[in-house]
Amino acid sequence: MTDRATRALPIGVFDSGVGGLTVLAALRARLPEEDFLYLGDTARLPYGTKTAGTVERYALQAVEALVARGVKAVVVACNTASAAALPALRQRFDDLPVIGVIEPGAVAAVQASRSGHIAVLATESTVRGGAYQRAITGLRQARVSAVAASLFVALAEEGWVRGPIVEAVARRYIEPLFGDTAYAPDTLVLGCTHFPPLLGAIRLAAGADVVIVDSAETTARALQELLTGKHLLHEASMGTRPGQLRFLVTDGEERFLHTGPLFLNAPIDNSRLERIDLNARSVSA
Amino acid sequence: MTDRATRALPIGVFDSGVGGLTVLAALRARLPEEDFLYLGDTARLPYGTKTAGTVERYALQAVEALVARGVKAVVVACNTASAAALPALRQRFDDLPVIGVIEPGAVAAVQASRSGHIAVLATESTVRGGAYQRAITGLRQARVSAVAASLFVALAEEGWVRGPIVEAVARRYIEPLFGDTAYAPDTLVLGCTHFPPLLGAIRLAAGADVVIVDSAETTARALQELLTGKHLLHEASMGTRPGQLRFLVTDGEERFLHTGPLFLNAPIDNSRLERIDLNARSVSA
Repeated sequence: MTDRATRALPIGVFDSGVGGLTVLAALRARLPEEDFLYLGDTARLPYGTKTAGTVERYALQAVEALVARGVKAVVVACNTASAAALPALRQRFDDLPVIGVIEPGAVAAVQASRSGHIAVLATESTVRGGAYQRAITGLRQARVSAVAASLFVALAEEGWVRGPIVEAVARRYIEPLFGDTAYAPDTLVLGCTHFPPLLGAIRLAAGADVVIVDSAETTARALQELLTGKHLLHEASMGTRPGQLRFLVTDGEERFLHTGPLFLNAPIDNSRLERIDLNARSVSA
Repeated sequence: MTDRATRALPIGVFDSGVGGLTVLAALRARLPEEDFLYLGDTARLPYGTKTAGTVERYALQAVEALVARGVKAVVVACNTASAAALPALRQRFDDLPVIGVIEPGAVAAVQASRSGHIAVLATESTVRGGAYQRAITGLRQARVSAVAASLFVALAEEGWVRGPIVEAVARRYIEPLFGDTAYAPDTLVLGCTHFPPLLGAIRLAAGADVVIVDSAETTARALQELLTGKHLLHEASMGTRPGQLRFLVTDGEERFLHTGPLFLNAPIDNSRLERIDLNARSVSA
């Protein structure tokens, strides 16, 4: 039903916590007239140290909750969930356009790299699953060096995004990637939506010559193309009011209101935030 | 039924992940002939940034799983869960001896402190709930300065337990506690079972004069007294074989086998480890 009512629905955005708000910021910038319904599964974060099967189950519950509230498309704004759950989500919700952040990130990295050696910083789960490695080498012949930077998630969640501690952690993860000066990566993918607030420290450790790819912007472009192709963009005739944001979390509203703005780069209105219980929803196999 | 069969049952030990293995190490040292069944709710860790209601629900599911497998007592080897769930656990499982780690930690801190100013390092949830503050001031008049050290959990989980990064993080959390030299704390409680592996860095930041209290040892003593009082200790007549360990996790067996030994201070045998699903269990209200 690609009718007017469907076009007026919000776009669902899903992450394990606050990290996906960096993607939401890019989506809003590109599609300012759209409404967004953001779901952060804060009761079960982080996803990055969990196994793929568990993350897939959590993602199915999360998207089911978004669908139950009415969305016209879903952005999986979490690399770990994109890597683990995209095929299962597309199979379960086959009428619903669903995009992840890994494919757009891989496309941007391949476009940026001249040498063909691309570094990826991600969570343990994303690195272990090899999704970026597959997505990049599916597009071109390339060497992909992936490093799990689990502590970046905790630093970002703690709001410690600059200063000597973050810089030392960044050096510890990133410097080994550039040890082989003869064939060092020329492109570095931020393969976790928690990482963009740490960009300053990451750039210091990687060096000024390295192109840093954040998949948020390319994901926003991919969503715009998808909605255009399916005639699902918000209609100008619906009025020119700015798009509205609503937020759902599974735990810790206070914490979300406190750390979320660092990732969204905008204030979050308490009255637009609601707590829900994903465990109460049953997902049939 | 405090009969022979009950005395032969293992003691259940529950934590959100690997942190409680520091408590299990102390329990084993004091009660070497007992069997232990350890449950790490690794699919939903960390608990420390979640709200008390959510942690209580998770703890009820975890202890129900231990009870279903047969245990004669349960140690809640997680400060966050002890703070949030102990009353609910004792109410739900009223025949089962259940002890937490906060009360024993508070007793040890009160015994150690001369000045009456006690510092507590814990997770966000434990600090916010004020359980240590209440437990300590319930025992004596004292000033309690509590600091949430969320990043310690991530560092310990990452296995980064010594070196300049950990020392810088420890200074950042701990130095403000000792800013008022006229009335600085003389005792520091490690109010999270993830923190003991970081003891070296914590001691460096706190200074050599401060007594550092780890509730694992006092919890082991409290358990021994409880089992003795209830005639639940393993009987000498049952033989002199060393107690056996079994491990349950809700996700990530590989990761548990990898990081667990750092906390247990002993190897973990793959064949003694099983994965279970707590969501599948229903907890009636």
